[in-house]
Amino acid sequence: MVRNPVSIDRVGSAERIDHDIETLAGRDYTLSSTAIRRHAYTDVYANTLSYFRRQFQDLGFDVFEDPVGTLVARNRPAGEKVFGLGSHCDSNRNGGKYDGTMGVVTALEVCRLNRDLSLNLPLQVISFLEEEGSGFGQMLLGSRIMARRVTEGELRQPIRALGDDRSFWEHARAAGYHPECWRDSIQVLQDLVGWIEMHIEQGRVLQDTGNRIGLVHAIAGCIHADVTVRGRADHAGATPMDLRLDAGLVAAECMLELERLARAAGHGTVGTVGEMELQPGLVNVVPGVARFSLDIRGVDQDAFTGVANGIDSFATDVARRRGMTVEFRQRQAVPATLMDQQILDAMEVTVQATGEPFMRMPSGAAHDTMCVADHVPAAMIFIPCKDGISHSPLEEASSMDAALAAEVMLGTIHLLLA
Amino acid sequence: MVRNPVSIDRVGSAERIDHDIETLAGRDYTLSSTAIRRHAYTDVYANTLSYFRRQFQDLGFDVFEDPVGTLVARNRPAGEKVFGLGSHCDSNRNGGKYDGTMGVVTALEVCRLNRDLSLNLPLQVISFLEEEGSGFGQMLLGSRIMARRVTEGELRQPIRALGDDRSFWEHARAAGYHPECWRDSIQVLQDLVGWIEMHIEQGRVLQDTGNRIGLVHAIAGCIHADVTVRGRADHAGATPMDLRLDAGLVAAECMLELERLARAAGHGTVGTVGEMELQPGLVNVVPGVARFSLDIRGVDQDAFTGVANGIDSFATDVARRRGMTVEFRQRQAVPATLMDQQILDAMEVTVQATGEPFMRMPSGAAHDTMCVADHVPAAMIFIPCKDGISHSPLEEASSMDAALAAEVMLGTIHLLLA
Repeated sequence: MVRNPVSIDRVGSAERIDHDIETLAGRDYTLSSTAIRRHAYTDVYANTLSYFRRQFQDLGFDVFEDPVGTLVARNRPAGEKVFGLGSHCDSNRNGGKYDGTMGVVTALEVCRLNRDLSLNLPLQVISFLEEEGSGFGQMLLGSRIMARRVTEGELRQPIRALGDDRSFWEHARAAGYHPECWRDSIQVLQDLVGWIEMHIEQGRVLQDTGNRIGLVHAIAGCIHADVTVRGRADHAGATPMDLRLDAGLVAAECMLELERLARAAGHGTVGTVGEMELQPGLVNVVPGVARFSLDIRGVDQDAFTGVANGIDSFATDVARRRGMTVEFRQRQAVPATLMDQQILDAMEVTVQATGEPFMRMPSGAAHDTMCVADHVPAAMIFIPCKDGISHSPLEEASSMDAALAAEVMLGTIHLLLA
Repeated sequence: MVRNPVSIDRVGSAERIDHDIETLAGRDYTLSSTAIRRHAYTDVYANTLSYFRRQFQDLGFDVFEDPVGTLVARNRPAGEKVFGLGSHCDSNRNGGKYDGTMGVVTALEVCRLNRDLSLNLPLQVISFLEEEGSGFGQMLLGSRIMARRVTEGELRQPIRALGDDRSFWEHARAAGYHPECWRDSIQVLQDLVGWIEMHIEQGRVLQDTGNRIGLVHAIAGCIHADVTVRGRADHAGATPMDLRLDAGLVAAECMLELERLARAAGHGTVGTVGEMELQPGLVNVVPGVARFSLDIRGVDQDAFTGVANGIDSFATDVARRRGMTVEFRQRQAVPATLMDQQILDAMEVTVQATGEPFMRMPSGAAHDTMCVADHVPAAMIFIPCKDGISHSPLEEASSMDAALAAEVMLGTIHLLLA
């Protein structure tokens, strides 16, 4: 079953990828002069889609958009099976050049190589709308629409632009789209026999372990929650230690317990307290209320939900022991998404043949592939990004790594469709 | 040496104290309709001084102000020895009726009783300017000026009004005072043979222990500091637990260690983290920086400075162990102030004779008496305030307790001057 992988001129691919990336970092493609800022229904976003449209048309692809503006390019007529590739080309508000866009650009490079090497593989590229949520505050919006993970009610009313508070529905119509046909978007997925998204890692694991490729075996599920501890605000000078109900101390115990629970859970489970608010928040007042956020993720559903349950009951116990109360409020819970084993195995064969260092790894961040995987066998491939920095103008990734990923993707599809 | 204490009609005293307190909570005496808001050089503050001026003049006292507006009333000519009583009558911005004002009102009641009981004790009442710092952001400003704990440079420039940013100097001159003579203010203290300030406790110790009187044996010293932990901000999903430099976790360890150290230090030492800031402060980002405040107080200088040093070195050790750095920056350090033993003993004799429950206790909060004590044998007497609530319109204290304190002060002075 194993065939020789496709071998490419990576330097040439890296040059083309660099050219695309630098072009799309130009002033026609970002609202900010110091960062990439690009979101749905802005001129700079439309310019970006136009750029990709021209590139794919030059390759002879049919290019169209779904009813809300997710871009699709394919080299086979509707109804014929194709293999899917892509990512998103919107950015967060103070973003870098690589997050998302590098994935679409590399998918484009795979299509160029498919032509140059006369492989004639059936391909479809998707560039999803509004992955970052910087236009409407909703992550993965384009892929959630496509996978029908939203309701029409949400699109018509509560999902509103961060800029002017008009609804997504209004903005989509004003931009010339047909949100009333949003349920048709799923047709984009119906000819797909598989899907690979390339993305920068947004962590430091590949860099710190010296690997150039990450084969993503699962996308972590995630629980976001708030814990509010209610004690009693007292004068910091006039209240002896034994008479205090210091809500901050319950929070501190929970922060350390979360670290312990996440480590103990294994399977790459992580737990983070990123927000902490003490009330009234004055140097000379014992905190009466402490509110902190929880971000708990993992690819092992039992492990990470166990951490969330563990910290909930720990907080309750500590608060009770200290004479206080605690409230646990879940903001969001997303299950873990396992990647397709057959695609993973084919990627592993292909990357092994390159001789380049790689590892299997989870994705801690959410990606559009979570929605695609509802309907299509799917996987992801990561390349390193410098120091794990992302969502920042300081974001850096290597076009040589992207070219390597292009080679792996091309070889994988070749292998799978052979 | 022990004489029978003076006995008074406490109900009558309480009625007069109530009348004063309620008058000064009226709309001519506060800038706010929902709280007491009264600070230096406002009309409502001037009205309050005028009220006291009239009351003292009715008792035959000489009334004057120091060069910046601290009110002084005495029943002996300059150069004759007098016993001092008083507090402050400014409030914090969202204050209650009792903090400070109750002390001046009760001192006034002592002067009334001195007349009514024909005791003819030599008395001088002081109502200090700007104890709360709500006009110029500087606590104990009037008493620090009197005790020469400020410099002329500070008064001329950096001490500025919170309202319009004009200097204290300008405001004092505009209000008709003579800040250029601020060094003469100390003359107010020169005839004093002793000093007692009555104040509400601002804590819950008296209430929770069932005592009506607190004899303050020391005013706690205080260290205010900031600790800044520098780790590294990383993606909360994409960064494994082992690759993190989570500054929040160092902060959490320090919060719990501060509690342990303060309890272990004994002598009523207290330690509080009232402010905590995680940066960037997002649910899905590992905190790269954590900044938290320290408020450490105690009447035992070695004990509370030991806690401050202990938390500094603990933070350094924990940060180093976790691969981070820490910076300890002191905002302010005020030494503990011991009260005069002779006055304390006389107060104890007097309060014992009333049969009412009392205790010796430290003051955790700062008071003008700290400055007076630089120059005059000084003590304080506390009465309970409901649930320890202060600096709030919800502040409550009992005029019967204040009347009891008036009786104790009158008896104490009688005893000391006999």
